[in-house]
Amino acid sequence: MPLAPDEAAAIEAQRAARAETRRATVAALEDMLYHPHPVLDHGFVRVIDYMGDDGAIVQAARVSYGRGTRKVSEDEGLIRYLMRHRHTTPFEMCEIKYHVKLPIFVARQWIRHRMANVNEYSARYSILDREFYLPAPEHLAAQSATNRQGRGEIVEGDEAALVLDLLREDAARCHDHYLAMLNEGEDGAPRDPARRGLARELARMNLTLNTYTQWYWKTDLHNLLHFLSLRADAHAQYEIRAYAEAMLTTVEAWVPMAARAFRDYRLGAVTLSAPMLAVLRRMLAGERVEQAESGLSKREWAEFLVAIGQDRDAKF
Amino acid sequence: MPLAPDEAAAIEAQRAARAETRRATVAALEDMLYHPHPVLDHGFVRVIDYMGDDGAIVQAARVSYGRGTRKVSEDEGLIRYLMRHRHTTPFEMCEIKYHVKLPIFVARQWIRHRMANVNEYSARYSILDREFYLPAPEHLAAQSATNRQGRGEIVEGDEAALVLDLLREDAARCHDHYLAMLNEGEDGAPRDPARRGLARELARMNLTLNTYTQWYWKTDLHNLLHFLSLRADAHAQYEIRAYAEAMLTTVEAWVPMAARAFRDYRLGAVTLSAPMLAVLRRMLAGERVEQAESGLSKREWAEFLVAIGQDRDAKF
Amino acid sequence: MPLAPDEAAAIEAQRAARAETRRATVAALEDMLYHPHPVLDHGFVRVIDYMGDDGAIVQAARVSYGRGTRKVSEDEGLIRYLMRHRHTTPFEMCEIKYHVKLPIFVARQWIRHRMANVNEYSARYSILDREFYLPAPEHLAAQSATNRQGRGEIVEGDEAALVLDLLREDAARCHDHYLAMLNEGEDGAPRDPARRGLARELARMNLTLNTYTQWYWKTDLHNLLHFLSLRADAHAQYEIRAYAEAMLTTVEAWVPMAARAFRDYRLGAVTLSAPMLAVLRRMLAGERVEQAESGLSKREWAEFLVAIGQDRDAKF
Amino acid sequence: MPLAPDEAAAIEAQRAARAETRRATVAALEDMLYHPHPVLDHGFVRVIDYMGDDGAIVQAARVSYGRGTRKVSEDEGLIRYLMRHRHTTPFEMCEIKYHVKLPIFVARQWIRHRMANVNEYSARYSILDREFYLPAPEHLAAQSATNRQGRGEIVEGDEAALVLDLLREDAARCHDHYLAMLNEGEDGAPRDPARRGLARELARMNLTLNTYTQWYWKTDLHNLLHFLSLRADAHAQYEIRAYAEAMLTTVEAWVPMAARAFRDYRLGAVTLSAPMLAVLRRMLAGERVEQAESGLSKREWAEFLVAIGQDRDAKF
Repeated sequence: MPLAPDEAAAIEAQRAARAETRRATVAALEDMLYHPHPVLDHGFVRVIDYMGDDGAIVQAARVSYGRGTRKVSEDEGLIRYLMRHRHTTPFEMCEIKYHVKLPIFVARQWIRHRMANVNEYSARYSILDREFYLPAPEHLAAQSATNRQGRGEIVEGDEAALVLDLLREDAARCHDHYLAMLNEGEDGAPRDPARRGLARELARMNLTLNTYTQWYWKTDLHNLLHFLSLRADAHAQYEIRAYAEAMLTTVEAWVPMAARAFRDYRLGAVTLSAPMLAVLRRMLAGERVEQAESGLSKREWAEFLVAIGQDRDAKF
Repeated sequence: MPLAPDEAAAIEAQRAARAETRRATVAALEDMLYHPHPVLDHGFVRVIDYMGDDGAIVQAARVSYGRGTRKVSEDEGLIRYLMRHRHTTPFEMCEIKYHVKLPIFVARQWIRHRMANVNEYSARYSILDREFYLPAPEHLAAQSATNRQGRGEIVEGDEAALVLDLLREDAARCHDHYLAMLNEGEDGAPRDPARRGLARELARMNLTLNTYTQWYWKTDLHNLLHFLSLRADAHAQYEIRAYAEAMLTTVEAWVPMAARAFRDYRLGAVTLSAPMLAVLRRMLAGERVEQAESGLSKREWAEFLVAIGQDRDAKF
Repeated sequence: MPLAPDEAAAIEAQRAARAETRRATVAALEDMLYHPHPVLDHGFVRVIDYMGDDGAIVQAARVSYGRGTRKVSEDEGLIRYLMRHRHTTPFEMCEIKYHVKLPIFVARQWIRHRMANVNEYSARYSILDREFYLPAPEHLAAQSATNRQGRGEIVEGDEAALVLDLLREDAARCHDHYLAMLNEGEDGAPRDPARRGLARELARMNLTLNTYTQWYWKTDLHNLLHFLSLRADAHAQYEIRAYAEAMLTTVEAWVPMAARAFRDYRLGAVTLSAPMLAVLRRMLAGERVEQAESGLSKREWAEFLVAIGQDRDAKF
Repeated sequence: MPLAPDEAAAIEAQRAARAETRRATVAALEDMLYHPHPVLDHGFVRVIDYMGDDGAIVQAARVSYGRGTRKVSEDEGLIRYLMRHRHTTPFEMCEIKYHVKLPIFVARQWIRHRMANVNEYSARYSILDREFYLPAPEHLAAQSATNRQGRGEIVEGDEAALVLDLLREDAARCHDHYLAMLNEGEDGAPRDPARRGLARELARMNLTLNTYTQWYWKTDLHNLLHFLSLRADAHAQYEIRAYAEAMLTTVEAWVPMAARAFRDYRLGAVTLSAPMLAVLRRMLAGERVEQAESGLSKREWAEFLVAIGQDRDAKF
């Protein structure tokens, strides 16, 4: 993720500026502010702004006149209670804004989360840079044989080389032709004065889905945690998970109590269905239960064993 | 709006605290921060937190690495362009949080605006104070004779006195009985040890709709301006308009450029329908147009004359 | 819930009308259509319209050209898979619209669910009927001694009689005074020609929170199930739960496969936190675990025992 | 837009099925139901389901027990009043669901409208067809010289031929390589048994943005009209406008009264800012106003002249 000199300078200028505020402030997040966390080969996530802290969650839950915080242990207890019982509105009182650079196919997954504000770099208006995502060799996975939307073993050797060549060459050629159709030179003058140049809003259709775009993305803590619970999950596609994991580190700096509660009650939690609970109760009573007479389908049985830690070989 | 001593002290403590931040900061809004603006007889609006400034709007519109601002005149021109052409997403990049104390019947109108985050003081959990809204004499309006949801002349004299007596006595009696049913003393012990005390979540149903409640309410600038365009409008009920007007002063301190554009392109703007435009064009061509052959209904004709300033006596 | 003759006639007229359609149609829900299910003493829920069926869920999940359904067992398996793995968007493809009559304090809880469309009867514009909720004796609960927002034992005898008298008299008196302030007779003429009559939008503030209002409420199946998971839950206040339970019967008529999956994977399911799972695994390995060294707080320990069915006396 | 035989048969089967319903039904929309309206070279829009009609709008506005409709002229008057005064909630009571086939770059504009439910064909799970958008010669526009996000004159002759060749060849090659990387044969067996085949969720990144995707898209009438007001507008990119125009014909069949009000009060309406209104009033008083002393910028002045029909040559 090499920044252009003017981009790096703009970031440094923002990091250098300081002002006094009466608002809730989080030193650990201030340290990260504006700084890009690299993700994938050319992408990044950086925090641009934030509102609130752990105290804002308890303040809203108590609808208080002042900060609303009490003893640290009481505040953390309240946050854990709210998280456990899915009292979600106090978490909506914290807000965060990111600047993200990401491949278009990742942006298409991401945008399905509707409870956020987005301003994307416009390829109707501007020209996209010649940057596209190429997976690192260890992420060049084959189609899963068992799970139609999953990944299997790593593609290696000649096949890997072929795949990377195709991805690189196709993306590069498509971008070259994009610029050729636009016919715009560095200075805005036409490259070839004999041609008009295709409209930007049309030429962009020639780009491949691994081309990088960027956007400002803002959401509240409740919706961010929902996003992370789906996208930092092992079932998420690796490429979006890489962004989710980078964002999770910013959440830990920002609202450490809420982040701990999130790890305990969401990321590390498991939901057992009514039929699963019936089986579990038989097991705890000492009964030995087999799938065939469990009332669970084979698929649910497998999920159940993983959930209760009885299938330690499980790959999920 | 007399604050209890502990409430005033909590607010002062928050106002006194200062921290350094790298975030965008607005001095004029910092001055107002936490301070309650009185509204109606016991209500208030106070800004609890904010994110962003005028610069954040242009920064998002430009998806820039740094602050994104240029010359002041260019920034204001861009903001005015965005407002005029209803490019709303850059305004969503600013966020503000209020603490509001308001009568329940006003809260019921307000909550219809769904694009916001709310934490209301819980009467399931806590006991509501003995405070209720009584209109000032100049707001004690009669039912409009012409507009089924509007107000007419002021109710005066004996009728006004009767109305205020009924409102005051009914609210007070209902709250007294609410406390009686709860049977809770100052210290949590039962007032009357022979009674159990009705559950709070039930007893609250005895309160009148002018009882004050309070909430934390957070929204983005785009949705706030939409709220203000409807609620600071002359057609809005006076009681909610009083809140909208207090909030408008906070917007002017916070994002002065956006506030000016909002006054020019929303609050002070008028939308002319296709049939109205057809009439206007005939008028500008020097033709004298009468309602009967205008193609507009009587109601639309009246609205049209007001819109183009031809009916200076109009009361709307 | 006695309907006025004109209301009953309007409902019968709608039930009698039939038309042919190419849309997905559910016979069991057609049987219920427009018919009011009584709730509380004067309230009701009735289905006014619906879109989609169980088939629409699988059709959307498969983005198919035709109905998209296959064998019944395959469709149900897919719906159960979607519900279990929280793939929520296919459930958003079904929509339902209710007409609900409910006390204002219940409406205030309900409206917190923002992902719905609402049109409420306007007390700015019209006059509210003289109907208010009075709890049946078996729902006249005392404040819970242990849970600050819960109910305890039933209030009985003289105290119950006192409570019901206060609720009835206060609501009735407030409504009488509401009408007196309005000064509107049956025919629209003033009751007392010497008075102007207070504006409807002001007079309504004198009503108590148990006064009935009504609204049209429309939402999609995903958001409806989320609403029901919170409001048909044992922790919900009885009065809103009564509505949720009536609505659950309409969901069972409408989308029986989705309703079964909802009961198994939501209503009857339990989420175990990471610390709870660690304890469970020790238990399944035959270890005897005590709260003190479990890593769980006393409150979490109690919740855990209930979840795994080890505390059969638990009242939650 | 040639449908595959199984797709056409699935559509015909749905069109042939009939059932009786008590719900509001619209004959003109039933005629269109399931039928694909062709858009662009391979795309379509087809209505899959709907809820409500013009009557449902007035029914919700009146919160009535029966159909709520009165005389046709009264109903249309009410709908026009609601549209003119932006009382939007009654329009939210109608819902419609479309199946749309569209190029990915159009889908990326479309998805910015968040108030809708979407299920898109998953390229993580399935393989995308070899279909991509190639503009018709009359839509092959050059970049606008004056408007950075607009189109100018048509690209013609050799340049047009070059552009179409590049678009066609790049899209075709990228799709061929996509299939090659997948290494999946017709029957699911590997094309080349010596290779594993790249995961579908990765291979898709090699596709160009003019590749067709498809989705189910459902929204309410208010949000649909907001979408159409932006996307059926002359400033919208032609490719998404083509979809909006096809959808507008379905709205006219579905809710003709609302559609007429929409054309008069939205599509054909103009909003004049406070400064524009000041100028207009001077003009109506017979004064001759020039831009320089109008208080409007040159850009606003030009927009103003177009709005009031004084600039008949204007191309906007």
